[in-house]
Amino acid sequence: MTSFSFTLSHTDGAARRGLIGTVRGEINTPAFMPVGTVGTVKGLYPEQVRETGADILLGNTYHLMLRPGAEQVAKLGGLHNFMDWQRPILTDSGGFQVMSLAKLRKLTEKGVTFRSHIDGSQYELTPERSIEIQTLLDSDIIMQLDECIALPAERKEMERAMELSLRWAQRSKDAFNSQGHRALFGIVQGGDDLELRSRSATGLKSIGFDGYAVGGLAVGEPQETMFRVLSGITPELPTDRPRYLMGVGKPDDILGGIERGIDMFDCVHPTRAGRHGHAYTRFGVLNFKNARHRDDPRPIDENSPNPNCRRFSRAYLHHLMRTEEMLGAMILSQVNLAYYQELCSGARASIEAGTFTDYAAQTRAGWAAGDLPPN
Amino acid sequence: MTSFSFTLSHTDGAARRGLIGTVRGEINTPAFMPVGTVGTVKGLYPEQVRETGADILLGNTYHLMLRPGAEQVAKLGGLHNFMDWQRPILTDSGGFQVMSLAKLRKLTEKGVTFRSHIDGSQYELTPERSIEIQTLLDSDIIMQLDECIALPAERKEMERAMELSLRWAQRSKDAFNSQGHRALFGIVQGGDDLELRSRSATGLKSIGFDGYAVGGLAVGEPQETMFRVLSGITPELPTDRPRYLMGVGKPDDILGGIERGIDMFDCVHPTRAGRHGHAYTRFGVLNFKNARHRDDPRPIDENSPNPNCRRFSRAYLHHLMRTEEMLGAMILSQVNLAYYQELCSGARASIEAGTFTDYAAQTRAGWAAGDLPPN
Repeated sequence: MTSFSFTLSHTDGAARRGLIGTVRGEINTPAFMPVGTVGTVKGLYPEQVRETGADILLGNTYHLMLRPGAEQVAKLGGLHNFMDWQRPILTDSGGFQVMSLAKLRKLTEKGVTFRSHIDGSQYELTPERSIEIQTLLDSDIIMQLDECIALPAERKEMERAMELSLRWAQRSKDAFNSQGHRALFGIVQGGDDLELRSRSATGLKSIGFDGYAVGGLAVGEPQETMFRVLSGITPELPTDRPRYLMGVGKPDDILGGIERGIDMFDCVHPTRAGRHGHAYTRFGVLNFKNARHRDDPRPIDENSPNPNCRRFSRAYLHHLMRTEEMLGAMILSQVNLAYYQELCSGARASIEAGTFTDYAAQTRAGWAAGDLPPN
Repeated sequence: MTSFSFTLSHTDGAARRGLIGTVRGEINTPAFMPVGTVGTVKGLYPEQVRETGADILLGNTYHLMLRPGAEQVAKLGGLHNFMDWQRPILTDSGGFQVMSLAKLRKLTEKGVTFRSHIDGSQYELTPERSIEIQTLLDSDIIMQLDECIALPAERKEMERAMELSLRWAQRSKDAFNSQGHRALFGIVQGGDDLELRSRSATGLKSIGFDGYAVGGLAVGEPQETMFRVLSGITPELPTDRPRYLMGVGKPDDILGGIERGIDMFDCVHPTRAGRHGHAYTRFGVLNFKNARHRDDPRPIDENSPNPNCRRFSRAYLHHLMRTEEMLGAMILSQVNLAYYQELCSGARASIEAGTFTDYAAQTRAGWAAGDLPPN
């Protein structure tokens, strides 16, 4: 059993190509992590997720602590065995969903108490309990508990949440102490204020983590704000540790994140959008609920490396959405996850070749050109 | 392009082992046909359906004529290309769903007019139009339009519907004339009255069909009534043509049908039951919504040939049903379709070996013994 590692092999501007080592396999970065909310990536078998190119999944501590419960997952052999995904898993701390989903939240220095949005039962989440839960889940990459606030926010509020998150970071590190092969990531907070972000990064670095996440973005702010914060903060993060932009995003958010030195991303968007009939492609986003596709015998993209983009007609996909058939959600969730992986693998190859700027420009030009002309 | 064929290779009592030849591939009988209602077998990709062992699918004329429309499917290359299933497809006539789903039905000698249950638009279905639609769908096995009534029913009503179905059988045959490689099946009606059933069979035989279906069963009557009708009618059907029991059923219905000389079956039950958390197995039916499975680390059946029955714990399947995750419906639909195919392939092998009686007895004993004892 070796420990967690990160090797930065190439840089191209701020963009980075790296390799994370874990006992459950390697993670090529920049990496997109599909979200397996409650122990399943919605609409795909685990091997289908892997076939899209995913090296790692994300599991949600909040959802899993409610159902089936962390101790239950541990009894059943941990999250990898529970869902039959034997590759790396990163778990979040639960904090974000507590703030967005749970009822009757009460935040104190100690942690947060809340009631389940499902059955109202009461839970407590502290930095220590979050580490314990993530360890019970047998997570490979554990996130510290933080307080994530929505933007825009008052500076005073951003500062308070950042400082609380920093104290929780220290408690997380103390609780995590000697977890063997697992990694622990700290989370930079501070809203859209670069001075606060910088203080957060400095504090986290002095505690010392295996990786550094940027939290509290994609929480209501414009993309340019997110990019401004990223551009400001990534130069302050250690170059020899992976950087993870939490909960982001759409393909152009990811491309912009890679451009600013981010190594890891996660988002429910590709599977959620797929269930709603949207397909992300090199032509941009297509909406298969739209009657534009009704009579179109062409596939999504005959030149895609993804078989699902070549085998089914647009008319068929429109039909599946119109009839609300499960297969429509299954196919488009897979199509989106595969496109996100294609985007990241293209980024990795171009960073290796020193052509990332061209790659990003061509990718954006493809999106801007839009879909094929009507048949 | 060769024509439709049927070869009866073995019999064991009334049970039959045969092979149907079509231009799109062979169908081993006894065969179970998964139902791809509106151009998809709910919850499975086409290749996953094939991997369960299915040689042929059923498509529903009623659903497809409403959405996306028969002419639309034809424009898009036929149903096989539309859904990317290149093996044989049998289509029903649409009559059964018109009677069970459509609004404002009006039945005349000519046919039936009705309004769509989806948007209220008006349609007419006649024997000739049903043949035309099924041809537009590019079906390999076409069913005559018939009138299917619920049981119990008055003899007079059963007789009227049977005689109308017989006149529609003749019109279907006339309309079908010279359809090349396709096959046309007639449908025996007559309710639970063997004299009516016999008259129906005699009439159909004198018209001459490529196969003979038994319709109007599994429409409210007890299983013993269905079996009595089957035992009475199959000896009157030509031995050199396939026999198809429409819309049946649960595994014990299928076993009883094979015992009485039926070659083909179809039913939505395995996928519908899967979506509701039920798994058909050699132990009988398991309900994964039941808390009995909550803590059970064992798979459905560690000795099953189906990987899905071996890889996921019962606790995980319970969790997926409890959280209403798509993957639960996907897995259990696949598990049920695979079990139905296993049941039929076991029947085929035992008929070849002359041991079908033992096979049926052992299968029933397994169901009766029930599930594994609690863990």
